[in-house]
Amino acid sequence: MEASGIDTALLDRFAVIVGEGYALRSDADIAPYVTERRGLYPGRTPLVLRPGSVDEISRIMWLATETRTPIVPQGGNTGLVGGQMPDGSGREIVLSLSRLNRIREIDVQSNTVTVEAGVVLQTLRDAADAADRLFPLSLGSQGSCQIGGNLSSNAGGTGVLAYGNARELCLGVEVVLPTGEVLDDLRKLKKDNTGYDLKNLFIGAEGTLGIITAAVLKLYPRPKGREVAWVGLESPEAALALFGKATDQAGSGLTAFELIADRPLDFAVRHIPGTVRPPADGWPWHVLMEVSSGRSAEDARQLVEDILTAGLEEGLAGDAVIAASLAQSDAFWRIRESLSDGQRPEGASIKHDISVPVASIPEFIERAAIAVEAVSPGARVVCFGHMGDGNLHYNISQPVGADGAAFLGLYRTMNKAVHDIVRNLGGSFSAEHGIGRLKRDELLATTPPVAIDLMRRVKAALDPAGIMNPGKVI
Amino acid sequence: MEASGIDTALLDRFAVIVGEGYALRSDADIAPYVTERRGLYPGRTPLVLRPGSVDEISRIMWLATETRTPIVPQGGNTGLVGGQMPDGSGREIVLSLSRLNRIREIDVQSNTVTVEAGVVLQTLRDAADAADRLFPLSLGSQGSCQIGGNLSSNAGGTGVLAYGNARELCLGVEVVLPTGEVLDDLRKLKKDNTGYDLKNLFIGAEGTLGIITAAVLKLYPRPKGREVAWVGLESPEAALALFGKATDQAGSGLTAFELIADRPLDFAVRHIPGTVRPPADGWPWHVLMEVSSGRSAEDARQLVEDILTAGLEEGLAGDAVIAASLAQSDAFWRIRESLSDGQRPEGASIKHDISVPVASIPEFIERAAIAVEAVSPGARVVCFGHMGDGNLHYNISQPVGADGAAFLGLYRTMNKAVHDIVRNLGGSFSAEHGIGRLKRDELLATTPPVAIDLMRRVKAALDPAGIMNPGKVI
Repeated sequence: MEASGIDTALLDRFAVIVGEGYALRSDADIAPYVTERRGLYPGRTPLVLRPGSVDEISRIMWLATETRTPIVPQGGNTGLVGGQMPDGSGREIVLSLSRLNRIREIDVQSNTVTVEAGVVLQTLRDAADAADRLFPLSLGSQGSCQIGGNLSSNAGGTGVLAYGNARELCLGVEVVLPTGEVLDDLRKLKKDNTGYDLKNLFIGAEGTLGIITAAVLKLYPRPKGREVAWVGLESPEAALALFGKATDQAGSGLTAFELIADRPLDFAVRHIPGTVRPPADGWPWHVLMEVSSGRSAEDARQLVEDILTAGLEEGLAGDAVIAASLAQSDAFWRIRESLSDGQRPEGASIKHDISVPVASIPEFIERAAIAVEAVSPGARVVCFGHMGDGNLHYNISQPVGADGAAFLGLYRTMNKAVHDIVRNLGGSFSAEHGIGRLKRDELLATTPPVAIDLMRRVKAALDPAGIMNPGKVI
Repeated sequence: MEASGIDTALLDRFAVIVGEGYALRSDADIAPYVTERRGLYPGRTPLVLRPGSVDEISRIMWLATETRTPIVPQGGNTGLVGGQMPDGSGREIVLSLSRLNRIREIDVQSNTVTVEAGVVLQTLRDAADAADRLFPLSLGSQGSCQIGGNLSSNAGGTGVLAYGNARELCLGVEVVLPTGEVLDDLRKLKKDNTGYDLKNLFIGAEGTLGIITAAVLKLYPRPKGREVAWVGLESPEAALALFGKATDQAGSGLTAFELIADRPLDFAVRHIPGTVRPPADGWPWHVLMEVSSGRSAEDARQLVEDILTAGLEEGLAGDAVIAASLAQSDAFWRIRESLSDGQRPEGASIKHDISVPVASIPEFIERAAIAVEAVSPGARVVCFGHMGDGNLHYNISQPVGADGAAFLGLYRTMNKAVHDIVRNLGGSFSAEHGIGRLKRDELLATTPPVAIDLMRRVKAALDPAGIMNPGKVI
């Protein structure tokens, strides 16, 4: 183990806790845990532990504290900011939660599910479905991301508009602290005012304060009707007005309102097989709208028709098509889900995951386009996102024919130009992906010192030995 | 100032910050700030400060830290657990937020309002209404409680079912820290994953970590239709099943589902003028159900009819009446709002503010009745609450003709008997009123040591001088 910055005797002490079969030490075994999809965050580790119980995790953390050994918790390894990656020192141990994968209980009357951290999101969605319930968290990576990671990164996705982030879906947590102590707060309660809100400290902390090992999550009635529409529009202003109208009418029955500029649609259709332009075509902006009803299919149909009729009459929507079949609904959603991948063949890209107040979306889009052009003339804005949450994935593809590496050399300059506008509008430079390794410097540089100081005090109070996922967030 | 445990020179230094006109020192001026409605938490103070700006609060806190002077923040003084009361030492200064009473901005497109801590809840509800929006927090004390107190106590009320607690309604906060530093996190963002969740530490902390001076809160579209129904039922089990059915159909359109036993109804009708028995009478249990629609009055009517028709057909509801007029809706709600006061003329009472998983409500009611009878034979259970939140105000009136003082001597024994069942069902002994002075001992005695230790570490990290509202919560 020449790569190891930890002596073998100590590695053995960790390994014995989980059993040799679940202590991975060979390069081949370790590789999947130190490589992520985009290859942005190279890391090394001499050991990946795959504990099978909360008790084993507790003993690992006790030993880690005792020996000042840094631990990097890892779920489905789908994070986009490197929060799940060890650094390059070879001195950090990766702790995979994937074997804690039981759904402990589904309570259909209380509408809750008690689930372990390693359960894959899609598995949970399917289990809820089988119990005639909806678990609304929905992300592109749901086939492999895990609930523990979803909570640690306070995951967002397309269901946030009606149901909230991972944070809002969580009623209780079980957490192993850096000392190995276990905080058991697995309560199913919608109201509980007994002391400080510890739960929300661990949610979104990206594994830097403790390890979430299980959670009680909310379930919802499964909608009886669902309608998906594709809308062509003249401008983001029109989309904003249509969003207001749809919210008024549908309330939490408005289950998606995704804004899509024409360029990402064009890229997806050209590069992703099976993606075709929707019928309501020829407009510079598009909205994928989904409406759900707890009452009936007819009710959902009536609702979406009412919204679109009003939107067309008032000139907000240029054109609109309600999916005529489940296949067409799926086709509309497939476009949305192909937007990220569709951008890849267009060369190098600089990404942003921003949010602004909903009302400021049009202004942001207008100002950011000018800033992008100033940084890199001819760069192509690829703008789409969760309009109802004020959250855009505002990505920039290199100019056609430009040198990709040179364009990527502008990464920080471009980020700064875009994030300055975001900040000026009271927005966030990390709406849903988190901080991890990628955005830590920017967090430290741009967050008011008072907030940074409070975060540091919280970190020091909960992880005084500094062994929980070092170098991430703060 | 013989009552004062603080020397006059120091009091003068505090007073000069706000100006003598806003530094109350006479017993008569101070009295309203050291007396609360139930007279349960007697306290003394030599000084009530009424600052007019965040800057003044900041200077007060700086001086308080410098001189180790305890500060008790106070809003509308409506709290039920003594969180807003100074102790009896005369060494604590009360800081009233009531002059910070501006609504800074209503953003109808982003559906947010930015509001200062001293704004009275009803004032905010009216302002939202005037902007054609709904601010859904609704409590008995809304005519005098203030937003800062609502957030500090994470207030609940009747709107929680569809819209969540105060916590869920808050997007951003401005907080003056014990050192006088100001955390400005007044963001309007629905998604923001940039570091630890500081906001939720201050919400529900009852002023023990810092002083919330302003907040960004969510607004909602004002419903276009609203229907209120009174339902008579055989049992809590039937109410639970009806609740499930109503949730399935209405989703977040189910805006209230209040369970009421016959005894509190009887008390209210007998003792509160203008309260009359509803038409669907003669059942041992009642439900006040409210349904709202963003679409139309007709739509709300259809929805409530669908739910009740199904409920009656399946034998869940025994009888049901939909309010035929706004006056009748108000009359139904007046019953609900009279239940607390209606209990008072029946003599001494022992109160509980508990929550359990929604599915456990019937079991709790059955087991608690037996426990109550064992502690005090003939004591009368007065059970009502927010069934959809699993939250009951489970109060016990003394046996008819018994000695009130002797009955109150059973307060702790009764609490223990009831709370033991709550704990056994995974519930909370403080669902919405908080801890304050009243429940601190019980919190410390019954919460797992790991959680208490974490809360203490958070307290020490954020308020190392221990001057923020001492003796409350933790």
